[in-house]
Amino acid sequence: MDTYAPPPKLSFDTHPSRYRHWTLAIDGDIARLTMKVTPFGGANSELELKSNSYDLSVDIELADAIQRLRFEHPSVKACVITSGHDKIFCAGANIYMLASSTHPFKVNFCKYTNETRLAIEDASQNSGIKFLAACNGATAGGGYELALACDEIVLIDDGSSTVSLPEVPLLGVLPGTGGLTRVVDKRKVRRDLADAFSTLAEGVKGKRAVEWGLVDAVVPRSKFADTIAQRARDLASKAPKERGSKGVPLDEIGNEYRHVSFTVDEKSRTAELVVKGPTDATLKEDSSFWPLRMARELDHALLRLRFEHENVGLVIVRTEGDKQKAHEIGELLARNDSWFIREVRLNLARTLRRMDVTARSFFAVVDEKSCFSGPLFELLLACDRSYVLDADRVDVWPGSLSAGALPGWNGLTRLQTRFLADPMKAEKVLAAAKEGPIDGATADKLGLATVFADDIDFEEELRVAVEERASLSPDALTGMEQNYRFAGPETLATKIFGRLSAWQNWIFIRPNATGERGALTMYGKPERPQFDTRRT
Amino acid sequence: MDTYAPPPKLSFDTHPSRYRHWTLAIDGDIARLTMKVTPFGGANSELELKSNSYDLSVDIELADAIQRLRFEHPSVKACVITSGHDKIFCAGANIYMLASSTHPFKVNFCKYTNETRLAIEDASQNSGIKFLAACNGATAGGGYELALACDEIVLIDDGSSTVSLPEVPLLGVLPGTGGLTRVVDKRKVRRDLADAFSTLAEGVKGKRAVEWGLVDAVVPRSKFADTIAQRARDLASKAPKERGSKGVPLDEIGNEYRHVSFTVDEKSRTAELVVKGPTDATLKEDSSFWPLRMARELDHALLRLRFEHENVGLVIVRTEGDKQKAHEIGELLARNDSWFIREVRLNLARTLRRMDVTARSFFAVVDEKSCFSGPLFELLLACDRSYVLDADRVDVWPGSLSAGALPGWNGLTRLQTRFLADPMKAEKVLAAAKEGPIDGATADKLGLATVFADDIDFEEELRVAVEERASLSPDALTGMEQNYRFAGPETLATKIFGRLSAWQNWIFIRPNATGERGALTMYGKPERPQFDTRRT
Repeated sequence: MDTYAPPPKLSFDTHPSRYRHWTLAIDGDIARLTMKVTPFGGANSELELKSNSYDLSVDIELADAIQRLRFEHPSVKACVITSGHDKIFCAGANIYMLASSTHPFKVNFCKYTNETRLAIEDASQNSGIKFLAACNGATAGGGYELALACDEIVLIDDGSSTVSLPEVPLLGVLPGTGGLTRVVDKRKVRRDLADAFSTLAEGVKGKRAVEWGLVDAVVPRSKFADTIAQRARDLASKAPKERGSKGVPLDEIGNEYRHVSFTVDEKSRTAELVVKGPTDATLKEDSSFWPLRMARELDHALLRLRFEHENVGLVIVRTEGDKQKAHEIGELLARNDSWFIREVRLNLARTLRRMDVTARSFFAVVDEKSCFSGPLFELLLACDRSYVLDADRVDVWPGSLSAGALPGWNGLTRLQTRFLADPMKAEKVLAAAKEGPIDGATADKLGLATVFADDIDFEEELRVAVEERASLSPDALTGMEQNYRFAGPETLATKIFGRLSAWQNWIFIRPNATGERGALTMYGKPERPQFDTRRT
Repeated sequence: MDTYAPPPKLSFDTHPSRYRHWTLAIDGDIARLTMKVTPFGGANSELELKSNSYDLSVDIELADAIQRLRFEHPSVKACVITSGHDKIFCAGANIYMLASSTHPFKVNFCKYTNETRLAIEDASQNSGIKFLAACNGATAGGGYELALACDEIVLIDDGSSTVSLPEVPLLGVLPGTGGLTRVVDKRKVRRDLADAFSTLAEGVKGKRAVEWGLVDAVVPRSKFADTIAQRARDLASKAPKERGSKGVPLDEIGNEYRHVSFTVDEKSRTAELVVKGPTDATLKEDSSFWPLRMARELDHALLRLRFEHENVGLVIVRTEGDKQKAHEIGELLARNDSWFIREVRLNLARTLRRMDVTARSFFAVVDEKSCFSGPLFELLLACDRSYVLDADRVDVWPGSLSAGALPGWNGLTRLQTRFLADPMKAEKVLAAAKEGPIDGATADKLGLATVFADDIDFEEELRVAVEERASLSPDALTGMEQNYRFAGPETLATKIFGRLSAWQNWIFIRPNATGERGALTMYGKPERPQFDTRRT
């Protein structure tokens, strides 16, 4: 059932002026994001994206819009997400697209859409942009999951429009974008009602949808627009923080990076990611500001890695540049609390979290050329291992940013997660860095090196580790990493990536979903799916 | 790769006098559990269980021994788990057994062994029996996972014995019994060291094993026995509670139940589980005491359901009997704090948690005959749905037990988990029950009924729901239920069942593990496994 057809060519660069599926309109402190998917305008131009169903190209635009709200529209305090269709809010991910995709693409598609939903919640929690899902028609599957990512959900009460999660009854798979988790953990719907809801293909509407906690309100068509407008104003008035007035336009990334070099060796199935430090440590309030551009390039490279280089299993992460300048810019980021700097920090935190859920191994290499300083020090912590050369002029330099500004998915800093057994060790690293760069031997003693070796052994140790990694089962590595990267407390996000996604991955590969007579394969055909009825 | 060969015939009844693989010896307040697996003495008598590798029959004996320590040996405060072999502690689950098993059996085998490990931790936390793993030789895979479930791990320092998790490098699967979770979440080993450890087939020994936090101490052979004896005495002396002096022998369950009736309809793939209330509400300090015998029968039935009736997807849960007596016995259980009653409560809590991770749908039916009263009220909460008949003499009667004595895997009571959105609702249910049984309409209003219907609709609603459930993908239902049953806080157990097991299930079904050239299939053969190298 899995084919090796090349994945569709994708660009992660877009701009509101080029959106095919969304419109972003700003009116004072309220934004309106309207979804009207172009039927044959997706990544695969032969696939009809009916009923506001989406593919990755639709979600790339949504993610872009959320980013631009944060950087380009600091006056916005509330955002209405709605549909440009009359009777349909959104039908979720396009089933034919999913059914015809390879397993790796399915998994990476779901991961990306999950990251976009979590970015909406991050914007709400940390940037004070409150989201209102104005469900002006049928809100199904991924459509309802999009609504669930918003702070409030208002459903039209027209006698027919429902919210639904029809994946289990219609497709034999799970709602793949956090739906199950958000139903019981965010909206805290009673488990038995959640069960009934998620097996009811037709969904739930009207008063019952409110009673069960699936939506916050239902409103008749005649009052819908006014209610949405009023609720958006209320949300905006409750938004905690004034941000700014003048936005910072985000330039295009393209494939010519300035601060990141990303090279792939398909033969050894490894990639090398080199992140270059800043040449200038001063604040620039535009998109060329190093920590912003660098993180956006890193993010872009991670997405290309996921979608364009499926066979690469290991990424060697290196840094280069001026440690002093990187340190200074890290301190600037940590201490300046303007809205723009806050957004730059939040963006960097999201990029590092994108790395945390990228199903590839990451080994950091720290040698004489390295610049694991300031913001770049976090890259070392985000890697599965760190190889530190025992030589002069090899050092690392954590700064104030590592004390809390860049939390991982579990809500802790990466230093806290690393030293879960002894929280004082995280403090010791931060204290040592106050004196200046930490030399290799001290870094090793402080617990920052997985392997600390002199130049006689270093290259050999690394070479063996790289070869060994390439010899291991890619699936077992993914499973192992996803368990080891999320130690400590659980959050909605760790539940979504750690638990829900793992079940979905299992189900995606089961014949009951994707076999010849599986439910996903048979969707839209006259015959019924056939199941292996053994419960496991 | 999946065959439909019938699973091996298993008995969940055993007794120390009949153990083939373990010896249980008691010396004052210290017990010693010695593993010496009979090579051809497993469930499949043609399979050699070399090097203290185990199959389900070995784990059934271990689970039995832990139960008997609690009930039959209340004087025991510390238990040493060790091996009867000289150079091998335990090699983990037998690979050939795993490789030749069906996917459902693999999954259920891992689930059972996980429950046994968690029962060890439950005995440590709640019964004051501290466990010491005396690793007197190689401690590999499931062997190390068994040690991880203990309070302390001491490894022999003989120049060769290691602890290891070789599943990823050797078998292309995960350590399936909580190993990854306990390494980073219980022992809080640094993530990068955990990564290195779990890809190192040969494992880690000596000083490094202590430094990495993998074991608590390494001890040379000459001092091993004395050190273990001393540490066991220390653990016993730190045990918080005196339990009792005279134990309560556990009788055999067999397949003739007294308080539970379990019938299967293979055609509709449903089962009916009827639990009968007590005929006598007085305390009996022996194994015939109703809450003990009833829970043990229920546990036994759940295990038979899992292993012997793979195609049954839905269980209708009914209760019968005298509500007043069930209420009284529940109050007795909740209020009496003798060691025996505490063990009876803890046993009931474990049985209900066994239900929580049983991959079948459970619908509770509440009608005139029902007795969802006292301990049996929790059954309603443990089910995915409750169907309550709107008629006279239909009521439910929660008691003090539901206020905290029977926590779920997430550490909350089932009422708290049900009413996560509004904790006051849990209090209201408990308050209402103080007045006596809660009638159907009130129960519905309080949030205890998924469906509340009068006799005109009741049977039809239930019939349709049962048929609908049978029509859905068994895999999607399992995934959905495992996400909905664990709302709220996460614990080691929810991480193991929710996350680790889901990844393992995914990996178990992937060709990279179980395909013709998968790593698990190829284990022990001269050729190397072949991998689809796409990372997902």
